[in-house]
Amino acid sequence: MRRLGIHSFVWTDGKTQEGLEMALEKSAEHGYRMVELAYLFPGRYDIERLAARARALDLEIVVTMGLPPEADVSSEDRDVVAHGRALLSDVVKTVRDVGGIRLGGILYSKHGKYDRMPSRDGWMNSTEAIAATAETARTCGVEIVLEIVNRFESNLLNTTAQGLKFIADTDRDDVRLHLDTFHMNIEEADPAAAIRLAGDRLGYFHIGENYRGFLGTGTIDFTAYFRALADIGYDRDITFESFSGAIVDEALSVACGIWRDTWTDNDALAAHARTFIEEKWREAAMARQVLAAV
Amino acid sequence: MRRLGIHSFVWTDGKTQEGLEMALEKSAEHGYRMVELAYLFPGRYDIERLAARARALDLEIVVTMGLPPEADVSSEDRDVVAHGRALLSDVVKTVRDVGGIRLGGILYSKHGKYDRMPSRDGWMNSTEAIAATAETARTCGVEIVLEIVNRFESNLLNTTAQGLKFIADTDRDDVRLHLDTFHMNIEEADPAAAIRLAGDRLGYFHIGENYRGFLGTGTIDFTAYFRALADIGYDRDITFESFSGAIVDEALSVACGIWRDTWTDNDALAAHARTFIEEKWREAAMARQVLAAV
Amino acid sequence: MRRLGIHSFVWTDGKTQEGLEMALEKSAEHGYRMVELAYLFPGRYDIERLAARARALDLEIVVTMGLPPEADVSSEDRDVVAHGRALLSDVVKTVRDVGGIRLGGILYSKHGKYDRMPSRDGWMNSTEAIAATAETARTCGVEIVLEIVNRFESNLLNTTAQGLKFIADTDRDDVRLHLDTFHMNIEEADPAAAIRLAGDRLGYFHIGENYRGFLGTGTIDFTAYFRALADIGYDRDITFESFSGAIVDEALSVACGIWRDTWTDNDALAAHARTFIEEKWREAAMARQVLAAV
Amino acid sequence: MRRLGIHSFVWTDGKTQEGLEMALEKSAEHGYRMVELAYLFPGRYDIERLAARARALDLEIVVTMGLPPEADVSSEDRDVVAHGRALLSDVVKTVRDVGGIRLGGILYSKHGKYDRMPSRDGWMNSTEAIAATAETARTCGVEIVLEIVNRFESNLLNTTAQGLKFIADTDRDDVRLHLDTFHMNIEEADPAAAIRLAGDRLGYFHIGENYRGFLGTGTIDFTAYFRALADIGYDRDITFESFSGAIVDEALSVACGIWRDTWTDNDALAAHARTFIEEKWREAAMARQVLAAV
Repeated sequence: MRRLGIHSFVWTDGKTQEGLEMALEKSAEHGYRMVELAYLFPGRYDIERLAARARALDLEIVVTMGLPPEADVSSEDRDVVAHGRALLSDVVKTVRDVGGIRLGGILYSKHGKYDRMPSRDGWMNSTEAIAATAETARTCGVEIVLEIVNRFESNLLNTTAQGLKFIADTDRDDVRLHLDTFHMNIEEADPAAAIRLAGDRLGYFHIGENYRGFLGTGTIDFTAYFRALADIGYDRDITFESFSGAIVDEALSVACGIWRDTWTDNDALAAHARTFIEEKWREAAMARQVLAAV
Repeated sequence: MRRLGIHSFVWTDGKTQEGLEMALEKSAEHGYRMVELAYLFPGRYDIERLAARARALDLEIVVTMGLPPEADVSSEDRDVVAHGRALLSDVVKTVRDVGGIRLGGILYSKHGKYDRMPSRDGWMNSTEAIAATAETARTCGVEIVLEIVNRFESNLLNTTAQGLKFIADTDRDDVRLHLDTFHMNIEEADPAAAIRLAGDRLGYFHIGENYRGFLGTGTIDFTAYFRALADIGYDRDITFESFSGAIVDEALSVACGIWRDTWTDNDALAAHARTFIEEKWREAAMARQVLAAV
Repeated sequence: MRRLGIHSFVWTDGKTQEGLEMALEKSAEHGYRMVELAYLFPGRYDIERLAARARALDLEIVVTMGLPPEADVSSEDRDVVAHGRALLSDVVKTVRDVGGIRLGGILYSKHGKYDRMPSRDGWMNSTEAIAATAETARTCGVEIVLEIVNRFESNLLNTTAQGLKFIADTDRDDVRLHLDTFHMNIEEADPAAAIRLAGDRLGYFHIGENYRGFLGTGTIDFTAYFRALADIGYDRDITFESFSGAIVDEALSVACGIWRDTWTDNDALAAHARTFIEEKWREAAMARQVLAAV
Repeated sequence: MRRLGIHSFVWTDGKTQEGLEMALEKSAEHGYRMVELAYLFPGRYDIERLAARARALDLEIVVTMGLPPEADVSSEDRDVVAHGRALLSDVVKTVRDVGGIRLGGILYSKHGKYDRMPSRDGWMNSTEAIAATAETARTCGVEIVLEIVNRFESNLLNTTAQGLKFIADTDRDDVRLHLDTFHMNIEEADPAAAIRLAGDRLGYFHIGENYRGFLGTGTIDFTAYFRALADIGYDRDITFESFSGAIVDEALSVACGIWRDTWTDNDALAAHARTFIEEKWREAAMARQVLAAV
């Protein structure tokens, strides 16, 4: 693992500059070395100030988002796609401006429940948009990763295999997968095998419980996931993600379907998650050594 | 286990009388003794003829559904609630008319992704509607079970504990829980413990894989679920549910987020599922005997 | 969990006074509040000095052992049984003298691979010996717990159900079970269910990996065990046990079949085990809260 | 999977010709296409008659055994090693004579609990003996596979990694590993990873529950094992093994530590095991297809 990150929604609903700055402070205070910001739409925040705070705290920034319906690059509507491409281009530049290293999430489609089947034309519109975005990102020094999500949050890329096919269709070798245990638990036949299938196309990894709560209190077999990451020699970043009604506001709750308060004490949550992930990572590495010892 | 059932969507999109009759034949042919029909809205089908076919095949019928937005009994809008109560009453009578023994599913709210938080008034409207529906059902000889579903398909009842509280609030002892492995995998901290928590309030049980495909090819630890059912002495019905783009039509695919063909051969699927469930059931019973043997 | 302990074999082969004292220091230094000593046969050590060291460090002492063949109280040979009863009585007094709170392990039979089937007479000899030992222990303020072990280390009590029957046959309500994840992994049909079966008869619990190495690097589903402990409201002690050829000497390696060095750095092992157990304990308690939250 | 086999101890203690012939009949009757015979020491049985019966039933024969102490080829005593080499040579010829295709088990050491540490000289004696046995086997048309067993049944080869090293030291490319879920559950850090580590060196596979009873009633995560077999494209034989005090006699019970009757109805056991293994095999193959589908 390169750096261990934490999603800012653990700390703030992200609506204000103050909220984001507090999230940076809290993340660093808890020993995280990366913070994930969501929906960092241009113009809303003092980007330079955020960049300076992150640098001062030796925190790297990742930005993730999902497209709004009116900017869905997997649409068959030319104007919607154009809007989406412009939005992606703007966000990439904002990521650059904030000193961010990576843009991830549902960049290839709307974030939400679709009411139509995916289409071949939409797929092609989306791969072209991502290819163009990746080119912009390259010039900005930003990495593009595509989050594979469950069926209720996109109709286009629900599995690792689909994601690999999509990336192949972009014809870019600098676009990678962004996998997430919460989503894999719903969609993958075999999550550990999916990680091995992704191999060196895996660019970013999200750790979350099955019900998005406190790690280790749900059903996800994290040992299997971490051993698969060890199997492929994963050496990129890992970020902890958890949502509770206690922090996110109604709009965000609605977007993510967070109807319950699965936790209230985010300090305890973050401290535990760091220990949990670091220990699992270490145990997986040791398991490989034990396996091979003679 | 009392009777082993199968969801009609394995066989048909359920839009035509012929489709439903074929589903009955197929279910019986594969040795299932119960069939689950969905959205059996009054007036669409020749109910008497379906009832006669089921009787002839010694198949019991269960009907499940989720409420449409305009009939959401958890709404705060009095007219919508009234519409929902009328719909539920009509459906109960249709279940009676088709010779069905049980009405389940998302009877207490809209089936779909909400764009608002649940409310206390909505909860009370819903418990009252379910209490009234249960009274109608009692006179019709139909059992009411409430399906606990994931956050993307309702905002009201996502966990067993919520379901038990809801039932307590209906003040009825004839309303029971309808649990489903697909949904529990997303929402429960500990699905086996949730089954033990439900205990004799568990009235119906759905078996589905994490990604809704072929049993045993996903991540769900069915052994743990079946052992929990054995622990509580569960002696009611179990129904197999699996959806694939290969069968359901676009409208249904959209409602359930079925964007992929996870299988194409439904005969193979149904034959395997019966063996799978019967063997797991038997293994769970034997595990209890082995555990206690001295 | 009352106190978290660690087996002295993590630190020493236990052959010398110096070794045991170092084990006490190390255990306390790593934050453990209990230490388990093995085969504390009378006369070999300066018991008073050990007791004083433990008191000074606020460490409680548990002693565990298995009977040698010539003192097997499950024998059909009257002299062997008499020898065994005398040995148990002496050890109980040594436990008292060292300030120990509990005597556990394979007190009811030989520790080792049997070359004969268990017998009814041997069972009765053993239950009588344990009943007598428990009476002595009561007067000494020492608790007796019986370790259920795998088939290769005793032929008498390999499962929790057998242990409960055995305890019932002693007619004592102060004899309890001592369960161990390493052994349960080999013998129990369902270890979590076995813990629930033991319920308040469970008096002591050992945590070890399937191959006796570093926790979390093997196959044992500790989450399931800890949730079962939470289910029964377990509030007694838990002790970490791990053996490696790196520490135990040849005689001990032979007794326990330790042919490999599964670890070499016992400081790292002990530090990790404490974190591992404390976090699993906490996660299990939280999972119960999440499960029941409405 | 090439052929599905069953161990003859499911049917008989193997002491008489009649018992073995009955085991052949029963195995074939239950649809198994291979039978495993144990300790087929030369001279005890009418080998020609057994061979003819097997041919008539289209059953293939595998023989497995562990060395007795006086023939331990991992001994440092030259005479004992010579005795062991002669025994192995004789058994290979008997396997050939009975029409067997394979000799497996603990061919490289004593079968039993050791009371000494393994030694470098013993390892070399053993690799040389196995190399010589493999040469004899080659001329006899018999395959040699080495069973990796738990620490209580040999001190030499307890893990896959050790087995691979051992085979490399024999300098033979026709000696393969014989893995067994019962043993792997005790010794491997990660059994599925161990199967992937073995890869095409895996020559034979035993399926048994953690406590050696009815499949699916214990703790072993067979899904993980079968998916690993699918990962390596395993296309050799798989044999079901289960022991109960109900069938094996006292001598065998003692050798294997079978102190309990874990089942009594071997017809039910064998019928269930065949379904269990065939379904798991199929599910694992399908899981791979689902994983890779786009």
